[in-house]
Amino acid sequence: MTATASMLVIGDEILSGKTKDKNIGVLADALTMVGIDLIEVRIVSDEEGAIISALNAMRTSTTYVFTSGGIGPTHDDITADSVAKAFGVGIGVDPRAYALLSDFYDRTGREMNAGRERMTRIPDGADLIDNPVSIAPGFRLGNVHVMAGVPSVFAAMLESVLPSLNGGVPISVQTLPFNCGEGDLAESLASIDSHFPTVAIGSYPKLTNGRFTTEIVLRSRDKAALDAATQAAQKLRTQMNAD
Amino acid sequence: MTATASMLVIGDEILSGKTKDKNIGVLADALTMVGIDLIEVRIVSDEEGAIISALNAMRTSTTYVFTSGGIGPTHDDITADSVAKAFGVGIGVDPRAYALLSDFYDRTGREMNAGRERMTRIPDGADLIDNPVSIAPGFRLGNVHVMAGVPSVFAAMLESVLPSLNGGVPISVQTLPFNCGEGDLAESLASIDSHFPTVAIGSYPKLTNGRFTTEIVLRSRDKAALDAATQAAQKLRTQMNAD
Repeated sequence: MTATASMLVIGDEILSGKTKDKNIGVLADALTMVGIDLIEVRIVSDEEGAIISALNAMRTSTTYVFTSGGIGPTHDDITADSVAKAFGVGIGVDPRAYALLSDFYDRTGREMNAGRERMTRIPDGADLIDNPVSIAPGFRLGNVHVMAGVPSVFAAMLESVLPSLNGGVPISVQTLPFNCGEGDLAESLASIDSHFPTVAIGSYPKLTNGRFTTEIVLRSRDKAALDAATQAAQKLRTQMNAD
Repeated sequence: MTATASMLVIGDEILSGKTKDKNIGVLADALTMVGIDLIEVRIVSDEEGAIISALNAMRTSTTYVFTSGGIGPTHDDITADSVAKAFGVGIGVDPRAYALLSDFYDRTGREMNAGRERMTRIPDGADLIDNPVSIAPGFRLGNVHVMAGVPSVFAAMLESVLPSLNGGVPISVQTLPFNCGEGDLAESLASIDSHFPTVAIGSYPKLTNGRFTTEIVLRSRDKAALDAATQAAQKLRTQMNAD
């Protein structure tokens, strides 16, 4: 069985357009590298009900869940509490997280106030996820990995988490640019697709200077089948003069 | 009642990381402008079951649904058929879409083949959405707007659709940069937040050159309350010397 994953992006700022998400693509690239299939992403607002219902749907349907956003010190950071409620466990100041943060603030001459203490609230039974950038940790509870929304912190936390995941055989990818529109090759491509059931063949139009070209992407865990399908697509491209 | 919206992004290429989505932010910005709340986004793969179940959840929970991706001429473009199944209606070659495309191909010296004809398959009862970029239309069925994944085409189709939407009072936004980390202002900000129930106050950390600053974003449809809350936040910023 291939491991699957889902991602929950939490944040009004993404849904209002104020901030453009950068974490989805980073997680997608990383999971593809280690052979885990990202099968769904959801973006919800900073509302407890929306977070809990999405989390409960995702943590039962995929091997791993990754969240981004809502774990800072302010009143609108409600991810940790929502995760605790989704799992039906308690939440409180975590001594490990508190020690990490108070030590960090001591060293940098800042005080541990109520807002910063809020970042040490961790659901009961969770493991901490290391944050080398700004120290305040993420956490893993069951199959749910709770990480920051700030892209540099998200990426650093993901680095901490990746070695603990059980990936499958990574997917191999071949990309063939066709110098023609999708409409010219659709039929022949469908025929190649039907000959190679273990190869996923995607067709992606690109519009450049008012003219469509097409990128054909072949993906498979079966290297021999991938090579054969790629050869068939290359032959088609030559026949079509679309090199 | 404020109109709400959801978005369904359809495409393996986004979930594999091969392509980075650009349409979510474009839709989010446009809906905020016309006073419609985008409350959820989902990204699913090119699989009929996943598309249908997400669509049926979203079209009953929000006023409007917008989809991107999967309406091209190739075998992996299954959005139109999935939408028809979700609504339980038939689908076939649409004479209006066929006329548009065959005329376009005539004029540009190309032939209408089976792949291109696939782009004229439209669910029964749908209205067409104009595509000034590459002609092949999107469509609206009930409250679901089906649009292309190619960003320039998505944006053009969205322009066609926007005038038909019933927006509410647009949300007014005030942004205040604070020259300090979130941890320094969390408590005072929570107090302001509790005084202005009709104003949504978001706090967004930014990490630049290893140092956190904070952007406070105040959003409301109630202009007077927004102004009062913004004044309170400005006063706090002056008190904290965080201008």
